[in-house]
Amino acid sequence: MRIPMEQEAASFVSRLLDELASFGADDQGGVTRLLYTPEWLQAQLFLAERMKSLGMDVRFDRVGNLFGRLEGSSKEAPVILTGSHIDTVRSGGQYDGAYGIAAGIAAVTYLKDTYGQPVNTLEIVSFCEEEGSRFPLTYWGSGHMTGVYDWQSGGIVFDTDGISLQEAMEAAGFGKPEQEASTLENIGAFVEIHIEQGPVLERQRKRIGIVEAIVGQRRYVVTVRGETNHAGTTPMSMRHDALVGASEMVLQLEADALVSGEPLVATVGRIECIPNTPNVVPGEVSFTVDIRHIDETVITKFCENAIAKFNDIAKWRGLELTIVPWLEAKPAPMSRELSDKLERISNDLSLPYRRIVSGAGHDAQMFTAHCPTAMLFVPSKSGISHSPQEYTSPEELAEGVSVLAALLYELAYEGILP
Amino acid sequence: MRIPMEQEAASFVSRLLDELASFGADDQGGVTRLLYTPEWLQAQLFLAERMKSLGMDVRFDRVGNLFGRLEGSSKEAPVILTGSHIDTVRSGGQYDGAYGIAAGIAAVTYLKDTYGQPVNTLEIVSFCEEEGSRFPLTYWGSGHMTGVYDWQSGGIVFDTDGISLQEAMEAAGFGKPEQEASTLENIGAFVEIHIEQGPVLERQRKRIGIVEAIVGQRRYVVTVRGETNHAGTTPMSMRHDALVGASEMVLQLEADALVSGEPLVATVGRIECIPNTPNVVPGEVSFTVDIRHIDETVITKFCENAIAKFNDIAKWRGLELTIVPWLEAKPAPMSRELSDKLERISNDLSLPYRRIVSGAGHDAQMFTAHCPTAMLFVPSKSGISHSPQEYTSPEELAEGVSVLAALLYELAYEGILP
Repeated sequence: MRIPMEQEAASFVSRLLDELASFGADDQGGVTRLLYTPEWLQAQLFLAERMKSLGMDVRFDRVGNLFGRLEGSSKEAPVILTGSHIDTVRSGGQYDGAYGIAAGIAAVTYLKDTYGQPVNTLEIVSFCEEEGSRFPLTYWGSGHMTGVYDWQSGGIVFDTDGISLQEAMEAAGFGKPEQEASTLENIGAFVEIHIEQGPVLERQRKRIGIVEAIVGQRRYVVTVRGETNHAGTTPMSMRHDALVGASEMVLQLEADALVSGEPLVATVGRIECIPNTPNVVPGEVSFTVDIRHIDETVITKFCENAIAKFNDIAKWRGLELTIVPWLEAKPAPMSRELSDKLERISNDLSLPYRRIVSGAGHDAQMFTAHCPTAMLFVPSKSGISHSPQEYTSPEELAEGVSVLAALLYELAYEGILP
Repeated sequence: MRIPMEQEAASFVSRLLDELASFGADDQGGVTRLLYTPEWLQAQLFLAERMKSLGMDVRFDRVGNLFGRLEGSSKEAPVILTGSHIDTVRSGGQYDGAYGIAAGIAAVTYLKDTYGQPVNTLEIVSFCEEEGSRFPLTYWGSGHMTGVYDWQSGGIVFDTDGISLQEAMEAAGFGKPEQEASTLENIGAFVEIHIEQGPVLERQRKRIGIVEAIVGQRRYVVTVRGETNHAGTTPMSMRHDALVGASEMVLQLEADALVSGEPLVATVGRIECIPNTPNVVPGEVSFTVDIRHIDETVITKFCENAIAKFNDIAKWRGLELTIVPWLEAKPAPMSRELSDKLERISNDLSLPYRRIVSGAGHDAQMFTAHCPTAMLFVPSKSGISHSPQEYTSPEELAEGVSVLAALLYELAYEGILP
């Protein structure tokens, strides 16, 4: 295939990402598009319009995933799917998720304009949700498609305003029985392109990361209950301070993660204190724990150890402890055949690349058990992501589009599926 | 003097507190009377009516402090003042503050009915504000009387609705130049009775606490700034996690407070994390620090040491640190002579007592530099206060009234001032 004009791809993708970033833009230069909010809906409708104007058939499914379809000449040939997610963390950047959709649109448009109709149908998906930022639940979009979540199961999770996912979905116009459910039927391959969200490619001066596996994750909500007391009149020795107990657990977790070594990471990202008043000894603190590694046995052992130590800390401090697991994702290895193709393509395009592990979860991990799945990274400046400072240069964005387009060409035009 | 009939005093005080608790009663059984709200005003007007009906002259001063006056036979003899505050925290109990006013009314009424006119004028004060619950400011009432606050200075503090103290004061009918300002002129002594708000008296089976000093306090807001990063892709060794740094500071503070020993207390009551998202390494955490002790040099040394250690922790973790002091109250020692009188009276009344330190701030601390000041405590069930569960039995309330009445008798009828 002819390589997409880099200049053209660069300006196309960068422009599209800039336009997308206006939906949910905040005054810190960040983007906040939480699931089923007005900003989120506007972004999806904008993408639908854009894909339509580029000649694709568009549809929303029952949970709000958006598909743009370039019909292949063969009705029987499996669909080649590419895409990522449209939701963001609070005040995130403009590349995470959005780039995978914009790159898909750029690549499919380029292929259509250059080579006409493919043999296999090409579809670009904008998944409704991946981040878990509004509701304590991730991969709602790809999880719907891969059969992990029942579309009616959103009534049991709530955002901080007490609105259930089900209510939010219905308020945004989805969750109706008559709307089409997505399935994996006839999906031949899934390819996701994403920014690295880490510093490795940049530090090693690579332009393409070929993901070998996505780490497994476990997340917990830990709640520590002590005794709310007057900060002036309760001697130190008579306190059951939930925040001091939680602090000890946070430090213990960090120490254990350092001892365990790379690639294990353990993070307490969220903490809430009750009553959270300067002159009151905290009575209750809850915090999240996020553990990741590529080896599930390592994760299991680490988590068991952490929970045991948390219990010890709670016990000797006279605190009650509740630990609720709320996310468990197995490590997800990518298709070796597709990764080999990506390696060859990167070589052909003279792009420095490396095989890499993804420490972040991605929609791609929902597909690895079901169909050949590939994932590729472009560099992130300073490794920053989930932040308004997230940045990848237009040239790097375009290089990713070139590699993606070349792979989609082999899959959908040459019909070479693993 | 004849000891007040306990039965009578018990029912008088309990009934008055029950009546008062109806102003600002919430459905959790708590009381919320924030400064200058309708509930607050109704409570003050109720007290004014009640004191009037008991034969006292009543007046409001310019900021809304309420005084009930039993004129003494000597015009030159200094006024003996007793009382406490009428405002509460949000959903507080019915004893904090209110008991000091109710006990004053009970004691003065008893003295008047039993002994007639005193030599020194007796006054009961219901201070408008002590808690700092509506506005970020404490002791507005006693601070006005003792010259700490200019009555026109309320324009610079605001409640959460953006209403200034000045506006709220005027809306409640106060803050007019023609209204009388209170001063310390001719105040001979101040006596405050209060619930302990701590567990010491109850645990040691004492009925009366004779306060030797109110602790000094310092409060800080500590802000720790690190680097917001992706929780999956940022190796442990490359993180600048603000929450882990803050957790180490919280633990360090606790350890130092335990080493310093009683009566020092150090509390982190409030913590805020940014962006507070499960899968993001926290970039910024701020927390409050509250330090209390009766010896100012101990407080100063402890705070200097804590700040130095916080800086060390921030430095080796590559975090930025900002520490802003926002409250400093000096320790307030009570009058030794009045405390000795209270000790003798407690002995005479066969009430088990102990000298005690007040870890909480009280209106009395505003007077200690100006006139002989005394403070006494009655037990708080389980040490609970600032809560609907706050409780002191009618018998304990009445015992406090007896001790208070006996002291007021010595000061106002026998004219024995230190």
